[in-house]
Amino acid sequence: MRLCGYAVMRLCGYAKLNSGILGVENLGFLPTYLPAYLTTRIALPSAGSPVCRQAGSLNRSARPFLRSALRLPVYLFTHIPQSLYPSILIALHHFFLSLKTNYYQMNTLRPLALVVMGVSGSGKSTIGKLLSSKTDIPFIEGDHYHPEENIQKMTKGVALTDEDRIPWLRQLARVIHDHLEKGSSCILSCSALKADYRRILETDHNAQVKFIYLHGTPEMIVKRMADRQSHFMPLELLTSQFETLEYPVEASRYDTVDTPEHIANTIIHDLSQKTEFGVAGMGVMGSSISRNLASKDFRMALYNREVKGKEEQVAEQLKQAYGELTEAMAFNNLSDFVASLQSPRKILLMVPSGDAVDQLINDLLPLLSKGDVIIDGGNSHYKESSRRLNELRKKGIFFLGCGISGGEKGALEGPSLMPGGSSEGWVISRPFLMVLAARDKNNHPCCSFTGGMGSGHFIKMIHNGIEYAEMQLLAELYHLHKRSGQSAKEISKAFSSYNSGELNSYLLTITCSILSYQDNEGLLLETILDKAGNKGTGSWATISAAELGLPATMIASALFARYLSYFKDKRTAYDREYKFPKPTVNLEPNSIKNAYALARIINHIQGFEILQSYLKNVDHGCELSEVARLWTNGCIIRSELMNSLVEQLKTSSDLLLITQIKEQVQAWKPALESLIIEAIHAGIAVPSFTAALNYLNGITEKKGPANLIQAQRDFFGAHKYQKENDRTEKYYHTNWES
Amino acid sequence: MRLCGYAVMRLCGYAKLNSGILGVENLGFLPTYLPAYLTTRIALPSAGSPVCRQAGSLNRSARPFLRSALRLPVYLFTHIPQSLYPSILIALHHFFLSLKTNYYQMNTLRPLALVVMGVSGSGKSTIGKLLSSKTDIPFIEGDHYHPEENIQKMTKGVALTDEDRIPWLRQLARVIHDHLEKGSSCILSCSALKADYRRILETDHNAQVKFIYLHGTPEMIVKRMADRQSHFMPLELLTSQFETLEYPVEASRYDTVDTPEHIANTIIHDLSQKTEFGVAGMGVMGSSISRNLASKDFRMALYNREVKGKEEQVAEQLKQAYGELTEAMAFNNLSDFVASLQSPRKILLMVPSGDAVDQLINDLLPLLSKGDVIIDGGNSHYKESSRRLNELRKKGIFFLGCGISGGEKGALEGPSLMPGGSSEGWVISRPFLMVLAARDKNNHPCCSFTGGMGSGHFIKMIHNGIEYAEMQLLAELYHLHKRSGQSAKEISKAFSSYNSGELNSYLLTITCSILSYQDNEGLLLETILDKAGNKGTGSWATISAAELGLPATMIASALFARYLSYFKDKRTAYDREYKFPKPTVNLEPNSIKNAYALARIINHIQGFEILQSYLKNVDHGCELSEVARLWTNGCIIRSELMNSLVEQLKTSSDLLLITQIKEQVQAWKPALESLIIEAIHAGIAVPSFTAALNYLNGITEKKGPANLIQAQRDFFGAHKYQKENDRTEKYYHTNWES
Repeated sequence: MRLCGYAVMRLCGYAKLNSGILGVENLGFLPTYLPAYLTTRIALPSAGSPVCRQAGSLNRSARPFLRSALRLPVYLFTHIPQSLYPSILIALHHFFLSLKTNYYQMNTLRPLALVVMGVSGSGKSTIGKLLSSKTDIPFIEGDHYHPEENIQKMTKGVALTDEDRIPWLRQLARVIHDHLEKGSSCILSCSALKADYRRILETDHNAQVKFIYLHGTPEMIVKRMADRQSHFMPLELLTSQFETLEYPVEASRYDTVDTPEHIANTIIHDLSQKTEFGVAGMGVMGSSISRNLASKDFRMALYNREVKGKEEQVAEQLKQAYGELTEAMAFNNLSDFVASLQSPRKILLMVPSGDAVDQLINDLLPLLSKGDVIIDGGNSHYKESSRRLNELRKKGIFFLGCGISGGEKGALEGPSLMPGGSSEGWVISRPFLMVLAARDKNNHPCCSFTGGMGSGHFIKMIHNGIEYAEMQLLAELYHLHKRSGQSAKEISKAFSSYNSGELNSYLLTITCSILSYQDNEGLLLETILDKAGNKGTGSWATISAAELGLPATMIASALFARYLSYFKDKRTAYDREYKFPKPTVNLEPNSIKNAYALARIINHIQGFEILQSYLKNVDHGCELSEVARLWTNGCIIRSELMNSLVEQLKTSSDLLLITQIKEQVQAWKPALESLIIEAIHAGIAVPSFTAALNYLNGITEKKGPANLIQAQRDFFGAHKYQKENDRTEKYYHTNWES
Repeated sequence: MRLCGYAVMRLCGYAKLNSGILGVENLGFLPTYLPAYLTTRIALPSAGSPVCRQAGSLNRSARPFLRSALRLPVYLFTHIPQSLYPSILIALHHFFLSLKTNYYQMNTLRPLALVVMGVSGSGKSTIGKLLSSKTDIPFIEGDHYHPEENIQKMTKGVALTDEDRIPWLRQLARVIHDHLEKGSSCILSCSALKADYRRILETDHNAQVKFIYLHGTPEMIVKRMADRQSHFMPLELLTSQFETLEYPVEASRYDTVDTPEHIANTIIHDLSQKTEFGVAGMGVMGSSISRNLASKDFRMALYNREVKGKEEQVAEQLKQAYGELTEAMAFNNLSDFVASLQSPRKILLMVPSGDAVDQLINDLLPLLSKGDVIIDGGNSHYKESSRRLNELRKKGIFFLGCGISGGEKGALEGPSLMPGGSSEGWVISRPFLMVLAARDKNNHPCCSFTGGMGSGHFIKMIHNGIEYAEMQLLAELYHLHKRSGQSAKEISKAFSSYNSGELNSYLLTITCSILSYQDNEGLLLETILDKAGNKGTGSWATISAAELGLPATMIASALFARYLSYFKDKRTAYDREYKFPKPTVNLEPNSIKNAYALARIINHIQGFEILQSYLKNVDHGCELSEVARLWTNGCIIRSELMNSLVEQLKTSSDLLLITQIKEQVQAWKPALESLIIEAIHAGIAVPSFTAALNYLNGITEKKGPANLIQAQRDFFGAHKYQKENDRTEKYYHTNWES
């Protein structure tokens, strides 16, 4: 029965069989719509009979799919005798093969350019025309756009070079562009053998250009070509074509072994019935991302596990709750979810990091096909992402670890995306991720491939580390202001005054909102318990820096400040016991502003140092400037400073040597010193501000005191030392007690 | 052939067989010394023949062993026909069984009390007396020391209680004591059924009391007892004895199935020919520890791997180099090394942490027997030690992860030892480790069982973390002094003045030596490159604190200061570019002293907080005060402060609430503030001093600014927050943008 179930599923896009009961609601349209010869050959109950009723509560996740996909009433049948199943399957097979797509209408939600691609002789024109005739979407013969020189070359049996092809491809891209701009779909035949050619055709029409790859073996193509008369491509060019072909991992592949009729029908069926992008895990972030993509007319598949009494029909309820999800399909069954997706499948996991990710991947694996993509959008540890990448690569599945920042709002309106891992996975899912992402000030998506291994999650981890320190600096500023005798209103005003020009940032903006948020009892902030939580990424960032040998003092100071805050009981007990005086802080607003600006620069410098140290060892690791660009919108640490860093990092990764930064550091250092001294006088802990100053003092001093540490290590542990100004870098040991 | 080799090995304590050549140099003494009936029964070449010569270069590790163990010339035979092997084995068997020990002399290097133990009827008196007659070591019948009440009880068939036995055991312990104090060995028969009884007998005669367990099944004992007439123990007490018996993991076990003659000969052979304690890895630490133990008259087995051209005959060379190692056996073959050890074997690994440890354990495993102990004395990660403990437990091997601090000198003169892991392993190796360790001011060994899991290495890791911060504080002090305009001599004098009373410490002491160490070019310290190295434990400590959620700011600051120092090129470039002014520091010696004292207190408080957090989750985790005691001598962070902490931690683990500490903190805080402000004015990085102050300010403030962080997290990530003074600890979410 399970095999039958699978066969039906492949035929109608969705079906579910339980042993004894054929997944009957899926077939509910049959008595009404099936050609007569089918209904006569299988004795199905008629609508309205006791075993056929409008589908009710059973199998609720299937019903809406059928209703929206087929736009037909759905009936529920029960008690179909098992002996009828084979007949039903055969009947269905013929039924679907014989369907004209316009029988359903070709509903792709948004205009698409279908590029039918493959080597010469694979049947691009045949299929393209057939698709066109079945859907009324105009067909464009790509070869007709070849300039005369190219045609002559080909006729003479001379292989085209890239230089020959690129102007032609650009011309085709313009044709696609014109159609899509007008809001209409088109079908284009074009060999598009190389990845670069396909990128030219795609241009910036994110996820509106779909590649349909007609795949055949050389033997099949040779046979097909021998039948052809009018075509200008001589047989001898075929070898060159096969050599040129770079396998289109991003394309939906159809084998030319089937009849053109069958291929065309299947393509239409896949495009109009199947979903384009799956999101698994309908928490705050998963549902927001799904809504984001659905609002851009993607046919989404939503999945959430079913946990009785806790998580029931979660995806379905979301679909009901949000209008933009009307065309989405909601699932609580993983295999149905996977089966609903177009090939190659793109599945974004939005589940808690850790075991849940591995568990879900394990559950997915038997349901996936080679070439599918899994994207982990949670806050996974980068080493885990590296491991998963390697494990899945062995199984033929492309894996992306994708850092996502922006919180709920970012996810909904456009987050910053930091995908890394499989470059094939990137090519396949790129169009979708680019549409999902926030846009930078030049309207480019805040999304790009960050490199191999776990680079996406590494970058996200450092993003969060920087975020920790940015938040801690604001907390310390707030602490100083509170102890300055200012009223809540004055503090709010002061922070608003900081939030302009180069100090403007998302975090400062929300801090201003928080500082002015009043409820019945006054300032809400003041009623909040001062115990900071964390989700682990700050700790991971600190740990990674410790492992990499980098002085990430700002992130560590912020992490430990959160940890310290957690010991509320101790703090209360010690406060009672010690009663340290709490003198008033003298604030000089301009000085505060400069100190804060400088501490932020140091924080960002340290963050990018860590990134540089990691990315230099990563295949295809992206530039630091590009990371900064990804962080200019959608994410939590977006700011004017980040905007400047995009440009500054283009000139040098050694930020402290950039003139503008150098001038700022020199000008603002006294302010930072004053702020800390004020804090010391007032007995206020300012760990992140002091971390900034200590780093600056340490890193700008040629001769530090670490020679003493080396001497001590050599004294008690014979660890040896090097000598100043000794270019041999030799190691020495001294018997210090002699 | 391998089985033959093994049999010979067991008989003569050492032998090595290669297929085709019997491990012949080991048998070199046979023609001269074997009783005539043996030499007549096997046709061995005579000394001086071409196949019998004084042992030369072959099997060099075996030769010295035989020479020292048997005190006989060693000959090398080759080409003994295989057909003779069985005869040789049989001859050897009879030869060794017939040996009188005084033939060799019973050489145990130091006086021993041999406690022959086991249930009644196992043959303790028989064996004890036989041992005595063979060695001229006096025999003491333990049962003769039973008070009259006990004898009557036993005669009546009433089982003795602990209360009955303890005075008797204490009396026996005094008898043992008297013998050992006089420098003479003794043999004692005593059932010693419970571990506690054995501990009473052991008292503080570390490793001079050896338990010899005569093991028999109840059936065998019943048979033996039925033969006896004069003994006062009725048969019916046997069951109670077997029930009481706590298996003596620490004892050498001999099965009573053999004849008393055989058992006695084997015991004498094991004690006089086999080694007591093995050390694998003859690096700086391994060789120093071996010399330490050997100097205390332990029969040591030394092993170092053989790496051609790099590590050749390392153990043998050490043995030759140091007089105290004369009686040690040196090996470069692991199976010979293992075979040389008395059972249960105690093997201390002194190899680099990481893969080398696992590799060596894997190589050892097939050579070991159940009940043997492996002690890892390297700087392994505590999680690795936990893993190894569990893996080896499954194989019947007891594992200890043992932190060792003290550097080369400590290892030689007595290090601080922090063993953790298997409690059985601890019972077995305790006598040796106690002798090895340094002594605290009350002359107790700085060694005790720290708990299960990887606690030994965890404690060592935190030791090193505290050490990092202690060193960094000294480096920062030194930096301040250097910038005060003082001459080298003045700085040295200032540091010496600090190093008295409560500030006295080992690290400050060696710093004073360093500060006054002159070579031809002047102060050696000034020529040392200021790039600090590290061996990873400081990083691990920081990482562990980050994982445990504890604000280990001092350790982290010291770690990152070392990391920062590493970027010498950057520091040089930035110094050149920035040219920050370097004003002179004003030092007020008394203030400096107080600031330093306070920072050290904070450093130790943080360290013990981490320990507490870890140890509370460990089985049999030791007290913090005991950890402090372990650290009062032998280790790098020994100090007067540590001495005080031993007592203070007995009163409370919450050090900041202890009156004396509270008064010091309150008195010295202004000094710490001044020092940091001075450093800021002078542009000197003082990350560890500021970490101390920030921690103090943060942890003594009831209401910190983390409520803002919670508000921010709730704003952008809907992470929720708790409320001040809300005992329900409920979580709230606010829609901040409403």
